[in-house]
Amino acid sequence: MSDAKVRPFLKTLSLQPENQETPISFVPNKRTPYQLFYRRNHFTYPTLTYLNYWLPIRGLVNRPTLFSLSDIYQLPSKSLKVVLECAGDKRSFFDPKVFGEQWEKGAISQGVWKGVSLRTLLELAGLETGAKEVVIEGYDVGKRKDTEEIHRYARSLPIEKALHPDTLIAYECNTQPIPFKHGFPFRLIVPNWYAMASVKWIKQITVIGKHFDGPFQNIDYMYYPHIESIKDAYPVTTINVNSTIQSPQDMEILETGHHLVKGIAWTGKGEIKKVEISTNNGHTWAEAELEQHDNKYGWYTWTYEWVVQKSGEYSILVKATDSFNRVQPERPFWNRKGYGYNAIDNVKVKVE
Amino acid sequence: MSDAKVRPFLKTLSLQPENQETPISFVPNKRTPYQLFYRRNHFTYPTLTYLNYWLPIRGLVNRPTLFSLSDIYQLPSKSLKVVLECAGDKRSFFDPKVFGEQWEKGAISQGVWKGVSLRTLLELAGLETGAKEVVIEGYDVGKRKDTEEIHRYARSLPIEKALHPDTLIAYECNTQPIPFKHGFPFRLIVPNWYAMASVKWIKQITVIGKHFDGPFQNIDYMYYPHIESIKDAYPVTTINVNSTIQSPQDMEILETGHHLVKGIAWTGKGEIKKVEISTNNGHTWAEAELEQHDNKYGWYTWTYEWVVQKSGEYSILVKATDSFNRVQPERPFWNRKGYGYNAIDNVKVKVE
Repeated sequence: MSDAKVRPFLKTLSLQPENQETPISFVPNKRTPYQLFYRRNHFTYPTLTYLNYWLPIRGLVNRPTLFSLSDIYQLPSKSLKVVLECAGDKRSFFDPKVFGEQWEKGAISQGVWKGVSLRTLLELAGLETGAKEVVIEGYDVGKRKDTEEIHRYARSLPIEKALHPDTLIAYECNTQPIPFKHGFPFRLIVPNWYAMASVKWIKQITVIGKHFDGPFQNIDYMYYPHIESIKDAYPVTTINVNSTIQSPQDMEILETGHHLVKGIAWTGKGEIKKVEISTNNGHTWAEAELEQHDNKYGWYTWTYEWVVQKSGEYSILVKATDSFNRVQPERPFWNRKGYGYNAIDNVKVKVE
Repeated sequence: MSDAKVRPFLKTLSLQPENQETPISFVPNKRTPYQLFYRRNHFTYPTLTYLNYWLPIRGLVNRPTLFSLSDIYQLPSKSLKVVLECAGDKRSFFDPKVFGEQWEKGAISQGVWKGVSLRTLLELAGLETGAKEVVIEGYDVGKRKDTEEIHRYARSLPIEKALHPDTLIAYECNTQPIPFKHGFPFRLIVPNWYAMASVKWIKQITVIGKHFDGPFQNIDYMYYPHIESIKDAYPVTTINVNSTIQSPQDMEILETGHHLVKGIAWTGKGEIKKVEISTNNGHTWAEAELEQHDNKYGWYTWTYEWVVQKSGEYSILVKATDSFNRVQPERPFWNRKGYGYNAIDNVKVKVE
């Protein structure tokens, strides 16, 4: 009985649809085990039959094509370690608060995704002139609260992003078939963008000659800077430069002595160049030890050896800078739907 | 694949020791399944060997006795439905915030506990005159942050509480042996008191003639009303009258129409007599439908049929009143260690 297993769990936000977040302080840093991979759904899980699964590419293409599962598996593939972060990650920290799922710091996970470049499929089908966007539809479908109509989850990519060789039709995650809840058999993986773009359970791909105006990119996943008006709204795309302190925990009580402050940093633009830490609420800053790696789309782990001799209360702040010189701001960019929170992360601790 | 199972999980606060809270909005209301029963530990799990397990009763008794497992199982038993609530439940809602585990609304669970009255054992051993308190020690042991010494988790009960026939040496929960993490083979169950009193993995029971001053009742589990001084401190005992809204969730977006507002209410003194609800931030109140039952120590479920025609933002408040006329206060009683939070519960929702 001494071997009572202790393990972390997802944090439940809702069950219909299933929205559960990663216990970010308690997961291994390299790959998020799929049981702890955050789950974000717009609808209940879809019903799919795989015996007769085909992936159609249609619209403005020379050769509309139906790909079978094995057609896709036999095409040249690549594997990429990619951070998936929900656009609503950290929403609960906005002040004033915003409505919607109250994600804390765990609407983010990382895995190695293997698949075929969407570009490969588009080239096989042959883009027609006038192709402007590529619409990816999922099998997930349901009623939105703002209308009585039934909608399918669907998103478009501008043609340049669709043709980026790292935009994948993925079929494996962490060397296993993608778990059903994360999009089996095929999930779009759009590195560098918030994960609303990474459509699960792909049903079909359609090349169109105009701007797609589905509600998941013209109503949701828009930044609305004003509380009432829709003025100045613009779409959510690239992940902001960001970081999270995994340890210590907010409001934790520590002893004097050595503590390893640790966490992750990530960006949707270039690489993380620097992570700075303050243990005195921003009066002075020091550089954290930053993991070196060459995964363009993965997060960076960082650590900081903190020696604290004096008891009292401490505010620990962390801010990351990316290679485009984007730095986490002191205050988040407040927007009505609560997307893209990336203010300097902080925890308060008491040393006894 | 349409049967993708969706289930709630405990929320992880820490793993060493294990502290995880019940997803209170997502559990069945009658009994908390043991997988979702909140876990609150002061130390890592103890190592016990059951082959040689004996329960000693010693100290100021006429016949110091070692009870075997089967001795206990063969004594007259009773079953009680009891709410166990951590004294730190809802700590995260204090303002100003207090240090320590940031429990939300889920450091509370309910089960049917079966066992022998502690009184029966004390009568078999025979109390000596001068018996003042009964000390219950657990097998869990470790270092506290405030000292280098090793402490065993131990608590005392005043003799009247120890002799209350509903104070149990429990060995079953929900008709099963108590799960190891919840105190197998024996857990003290002290109805009406916060659950720090309900010592797990009982190692021994000692009757003493003075006040016990272990750190888990003379340092922790004391109300300290002042931020610096220990003036006016007094021990945490009886559960405050309290209630929790399980649905809707805070910051949820709802449609116009009918909604069932639902939750639980409980008290450590008498019964819940009334649950009132306001959907306009306290301007007017109505009575919720309150479950009738005769479990003295269980929680009460309540529901309220809310019809909302007008879109906008609503603050829903709930307050319970018990048969001793204790009512939840508007503001919690702030105390330095953050115990006993029972302010009126509230959620804010947006109706679209």
